[in-house]
Amino acid sequence: MKIALLNEFSQAWKNDIVLRELKDVVEPMGHTVYNTAMAKPLVAQDVPEAYTEENPRLTYLHLGIQACLLLNSGAADFIVTGCGTGQGAMMALNAFPGVVCGYCIEPSDAYLFLQINNGNALSIPYAKGFGWGAELNIHTIFEKAFGSPKGMGYPNEPGRKESQNRNAALLNEMKAAAGKPVLEGLKAIDPALVKGALTQRFLDCFYEGCKCDELRAFVEEMAK
Amino acid sequence: MKIALLNEFSQAWKNDIVLRELKDVVEPMGHTVYNTAMAKPLVAQDVPEAYTEENPRLTYLHLGIQACLLLNSGAADFIVTGCGTGQGAMMALNAFPGVVCGYCIEPSDAYLFLQINNGNALSIPYAKGFGWGAELNIHTIFEKAFGSPKGMGYPNEPGRKESQNRNAALLNEMKAAAGKPVLEGLKAIDPALVKGALTQRFLDCFYEGCKCDELRAFVEEMAK
Amino acid sequence: MKIALLNEFSQAWKNDIVLRELKDVVEPMGHTVYNTAMAKPLVAQDVPEAYTEENPRLTYLHLGIQACLLLNSGAADFIVTGCGTGQGAMMALNAFPGVVCGYCIEPSDAYLFLQINNGNALSIPYAKGFGWGAELNIHTIFEKAFGSPKGMGYPNEPGRKESQNRNAALLNEMKAAAGKPVLEGLKAIDPALVKGALTQRFLDCFYEGCKCDELRAFVEEMAK
Amino acid sequence: MKIALLNEFSQAWKNDIVLRELKDVVEPMGHTVYNTAMAKPLVAQDVPEAYTEENPRLTYLHLGIQACLLLNSGAADFIVTGCGTGQGAMMALNAFPGVVCGYCIEPSDAYLFLQINNGNALSIPYAKGFGWGAELNIHTIFEKAFGSPKGMGYPNEPGRKESQNRNAALLNEMKAAAGKPVLEGLKAIDPALVKGALTQRFLDCFYEGCKCDELRAFVEEMAK
Repeated sequence: MKIALLNEFSQAWKNDIVLRELKDVVEPMGHTVYNTAMAKPLVAQDVPEAYTEENPRLTYLHLGIQACLLLNSGAADFIVTGCGTGQGAMMALNAFPGVVCGYCIEPSDAYLFLQINNGNALSIPYAKGFGWGAELNIHTIFEKAFGSPKGMGYPNEPGRKESQNRNAALLNEMKAAAGKPVLEGLKAIDPALVKGALTQRFLDCFYEGCKCDELRAFVEEMAK
Repeated sequence: MKIALLNEFSQAWKNDIVLRELKDVVEPMGHTVYNTAMAKPLVAQDVPEAYTEENPRLTYLHLGIQACLLLNSGAADFIVTGCGTGQGAMMALNAFPGVVCGYCIEPSDAYLFLQINNGNALSIPYAKGFGWGAELNIHTIFEKAFGSPKGMGYPNEPGRKESQNRNAALLNEMKAAAGKPVLEGLKAIDPALVKGALTQRFLDCFYEGCKCDELRAFVEEMAK
Repeated sequence: MKIALLNEFSQAWKNDIVLRELKDVVEPMGHTVYNTAMAKPLVAQDVPEAYTEENPRLTYLHLGIQACLLLNSGAADFIVTGCGTGQGAMMALNAFPGVVCGYCIEPSDAYLFLQINNGNALSIPYAKGFGWGAELNIHTIFEKAFGSPKGMGYPNEPGRKESQNRNAALLNEMKAAAGKPVLEGLKAIDPALVKGALTQRFLDCFYEGCKCDELRAFVEEMAK
Repeated sequence: MKIALLNEFSQAWKNDIVLRELKDVVEPMGHTVYNTAMAKPLVAQDVPEAYTEENPRLTYLHLGIQACLLLNSGAADFIVTGCGTGQGAMMALNAFPGVVCGYCIEPSDAYLFLQINNGNALSIPYAKGFGWGAELNIHTIFEKAFGSPKGMGYPNEPGRKESQNRNAALLNEMKAAAGKPVLEGLKAIDPALVKGALTQRFLDCFYEGCKCDELRAFVEEMAK
């Protein structure tokens, strides 16, 4: 599975911690990790000097656009994201069809979300409650998110899995109905916002794995 | 403020607890509570005998439709929702433009979401972690959600509020761009799903407060 | 390592869940589990008919006495306990010299306690917050408690481990100074309370592993 | 009620935050707050230059001694304490008769502990999980700890209060039996440790409120 980690500016200085814990857990399982949004900035403060052309300032809005492109093109199979509380990233991702993003404070949140809701993205708080033990907590979150097949339903009772999978499928349909087709939606967004999301590390991951000619053409055009 | 409580079938047997705690907290503040989705069913099991015409079986998908109609029509100003983990309800609500739904496990989640993300809906788990103290926890969640003006930013640092409000506004724009116009989106959804969401208590609240002729006409047509 | 599970009456009807999760985690590690206090009673209500001679009604006070005898005699190396909130059991255990009992709501609590405080007992809430996911939570708590050597210090900074181990040792000394010698303390407690703690499954575990002649003689005398 | 706040060295640089939140909550209720252990040190690092004669380096062991003297002499009615995880402080306090210290991560922990266990001390983690929202969390913890009469029992079911109060009283008896009399226990502890706990702000609070001649004489002797 291709897993992309997406951090925004406010907690980007913790990107190296999250990336390390994610790789520690999922690489031995055979998954590949891409770090497509922000890496650790030059300084922890939100000042222009913190950012470079290779590591520009991204907000949770950019993360939503990256996730939409990565998941809908097949360039990534799963997104790990978050922000200060994780709520902004969670909502920005859920704004798009094809993205099913849960919110996760502790390990059993992750497990239950993947069993019940069968999603393809997780948003985590990287400032709220982030003190001693936070790196242990996200390590264990990753263990419980990726340590077993998803979509099995919970709790283990007759009919529960089928009912939960049905609702998960219906949610995808309802989102597809309420939203525009992916490409049409992306074209309706402020182009400056879309262009801002197309950083070099994102493009490397996207071009490597994109299986959708339309989305590839769109990204090539916007990245010019 | 008009606050609507939306419960689905799996945790509907706790609707009376949530409704009581919500009213206890917000009525003294001058808010009005509507209980528009499921009330406590006749039996706690998910069997046909649990439900009645007045209290039919609703899933989190129906909650999304109710929230969309209530918030976009002005019939409600805020939605309190949830399900077993709260993730399904959160995603179903966030599928729609005009709905900004946070996820909330404990009181400071609610406070931070309202200060940072300035949303109009909260989803809460009513089975996950719901043991001794759960009614205290949701009581305090409501105190912290509704006890102070929202959108003030967090933490209290220069520029933080402005930056966070700007991102919250941009998220609304991005969602509006990615999604269809509200009415068009609703018309694209399986009509059986929409009709299923239009229960009597929902209609009472909707008709009482709806300020949008188009949405009213749509609901009247679908509720026939 | 010999690990004893100690449940009291109020949450004893969950003993089978806790016991199963504990065994699932620690038996593959080579540890042995003893279930020395309450097993699942005949009915969930706290009525005389719930209890039998083999499974009498025990409170957290009895758990403190059992833990004191098991740990100070060498019959057990570690205690897993708890009650409705886990606070009563935690305090009853900490009343005794030789018992170092932490409190644990989620997995990183367990890990940090064992790394920093190097204890030999953990108390867990079995009613507070005990809803969907609770069995996953205690499973993961046991993984993090027993999955690595304890007393390594936290966070991983120069001098931290030494400083924390020193304080843990000094706490044992201070408790030994403030308390009576173990046997003298046990003799000063209401004999009816002590006798009540000496149930058959406790005695089986105690006699099997006790390495202290004085404590064995005391128990034999009290159990007559 | 006289409430004493007790911080040790590792999290003392947060003492001003905790003190502010505690006063904000309890002074309007008519309670008086004493800050008897560590105040904010000169620098956040644990180096000799951080500390002064007025604000010496105290560990959780010293906090246990302070709490024992304050509660058993009547100089304080309640203790708020903690350390990195809060476990060390909790165990150091519970080492002494007359001190009934609960552990508290979030607001309902505090409420349940005071209703069920009727204690006189609370230990809180000031590093574990201490990120965005931490000051809100401790504020709400204090609201729920001190906002209603304690010892009322939980949940509200027939006989629950009586049973819980009985066990709380029996715990006090069992601790008194297992421990030495307070003064005897204090005299058995390493005098250097006791002397180290007798800082100026502690002495001010102790002498102001001490109602026990024996303990006063002991402190006067040790503080020489």
